[in-house]
Amino acid sequence: MAKRLGRHTVALESGAVIAAHACVGGKKEGEGPLKRHFDYLTADDTFGEKTWEKAEQRCQKLATKLALEKWGREQSALDYLLAGDLLNQCISSSFAARGSDVPFFGLYGACSTMGESLSLAALLLESGAADAVGAVTSSHFCTAERQYRTPLAYGGQRTPTAQWTATAAGCSILAKDGRGVKVTHVTTGCIVDKGITDANNMGAAMAPAAADTLVAHFKETGREPSYYDLVVTGDLGQLGREILLELTKEDGVDLSGVHNDCGLLLYDRTAQDVHCGASGCGCAASVLNGYLLRQMEEGVLRRVLFCPTGALLSPTSSQQGESIPSIAHAVALEV
Amino acid sequence: MAKRLGRHTVALESGAVIAAHACVGGKKEGEGPLKRHFDYLTADDTFGEKTWEKAEQRCQKLATKLALEKWGREQSALDYLLAGDLLNQCISSSFAARGSDVPFFGLYGACSTMGESLSLAALLLESGAADAVGAVTSSHFCTAERQYRTPLAYGGQRTPTAQWTATAAGCSILAKDGRGVKVTHVTTGCIVDKGITDANNMGAAMAPAAADTLVAHFKETGREPSYYDLVVTGDLGQLGREILLELTKEDGVDLSGVHNDCGLLLYDRTAQDVHCGASGCGCAASVLNGYLLRQMEEGVLRRVLFCPTGALLSPTSSQQGESIPSIAHAVALEV
Repeated sequence: MAKRLGRHTVALESGAVIAAHACVGGKKEGEGPLKRHFDYLTADDTFGEKTWEKAEQRCQKLATKLALEKWGREQSALDYLLAGDLLNQCISSSFAARGSDVPFFGLYGACSTMGESLSLAALLLESGAADAVGAVTSSHFCTAERQYRTPLAYGGQRTPTAQWTATAAGCSILAKDGRGVKVTHVTTGCIVDKGITDANNMGAAMAPAAADTLVAHFKETGREPSYYDLVVTGDLGQLGREILLELTKEDGVDLSGVHNDCGLLLYDRTAQDVHCGASGCGCAASVLNGYLLRQMEEGVLRRVLFCPTGALLSPTSSQQGESIPSIAHAVALEV
Repeated sequence: MAKRLGRHTVALESGAVIAAHACVGGKKEGEGPLKRHFDYLTADDTFGEKTWEKAEQRCQKLATKLALEKWGREQSALDYLLAGDLLNQCISSSFAARGSDVPFFGLYGACSTMGESLSLAALLLESGAADAVGAVTSSHFCTAERQYRTPLAYGGQRTPTAQWTATAAGCSILAKDGRGVKVTHVTTGCIVDKGITDANNMGAAMAPAAADTLVAHFKETGREPSYYDLVVTGDLGQLGREILLELTKEDGVDLSGVHNDCGLLLYDRTAQDVHCGASGCGCAASVLNGYLLRQMEEGVLRRVLFCPTGALLSPTSSQQGESIPSIAHAVALEV
């Protein structure tokens, strides 16, 4: 049974571990500094499909398949699959899971989805309802640009605050026992909206949500940031990271020595011309399920607080002049 | 701790109850046969807002507010809020929950969302992570028509198999103890796709998913359909219901004497010109959180198997010639 430590945080007792994990990336991800940590990379962002949406489905499906292979068990050993993505009606996830014969819960947390799915997966293990749960998410540069901004062929100019949506997917398989990185705490965020309306400046919109969740985590667990080797947000990018560090400092939590952001890790910002960094569900998902978990398994990192953030806007809400509600979910991982 | 009975079904042990519930409807819902079971009805489908999307947000927010009032506790007594809806990026839910200060998990299960949110809420109680969880969803005729089909002003002809998206929301508050209808079992569906491509015939697309989940429920619990006073699907409508009865009969489960569909209960199909019946997340949500739970509390119904279904298509997937993956989640309720 999980133990509630405060408004946002529960400590897990059942010993949930990430028993296997895999990540998949496209061309740009294969040219970035983390390329050797991907399980599968392709220079063909279509993944052999006729539409970008079908390409993203295949990318997500592949991440689940590779994680199952590394786990060494059939998909029928999964009690639940938790999945979500950025596309309207989450079609990447629904179509990827079609025919999989695993009881399915669809999620929507925008780019926080890897945190949401890990949190719920861990709590499902805790409930006794499951012995193994898959958590998967994806994004694709071409589906996201078309849906959120303009079709690629339009050739729109990117603003300096823009980030680059990752073409990537990541899957974790959580199990009740066995080897793997332990999930020890789940800190669930509220929706935070500080009035940012610029859909090309997601980092600024999401930073207050990340600050809210992280400050709650440290307060409720009684831990200092230095407890962790790394506190890593999902895709705040350069500007969002700066805002996060300021906001948390105001609340007495100094993350400066211990923080990084998956959006800053995935690409070489200068050489790869991605402005403020990477974004998209697939960014945090692939960095976690490749680089970060590998670093933990190799003992380079022993304690990581993983906190992806999501901007819960839609093109319709932006067109109606609305600001951008955001959310962040943190999951504490230990070797 | 929950006890797993089979691939899809777990039995709950912690005594989760629906401690409070509320539903909200618009003009057409207020003219239908269930009008006296709504907590709030308005003849103004704008809910006083300037856009249909903001109207739906207000509708959902109101359902949560009314459920909390009937519960008699502040929202700070909720450990989690689980919410989802049909709109792109689930903006009805995210914007409705903005500023609510309750840890939030966004869901996407299309019209199965009330079943998904109840299932996860019950399992979160079971995990020990929560003492009280809100589960809420909504739909709005005008937002759904614009997004999935054509803007209202276009005046498109409706096909005979079409259903009418409910302008409604429903909220359940699940708590670990106290009075209320008990949640005893959760049967989680897989994604089922039998190749239906007609986006105006959702009932036919969703019926196989409902059949799959319901047959699994009866097989795994060892129960007969007659155990229940009512087995109620979400929004299969008239055609979908007929297909469901045939499909389950083929699998040796005869639902004919015990089945109804929220899509057939919400409106008077003939007098209200809704063709095959009602649909939308708000259909099952409002029928459950009004009529059905009231009937249970009054002792008219003692055992109900609630099984809403979702069609996981998007306009983009339909335009790309894809068929319609569907899902159904069942929750067993007892007085």
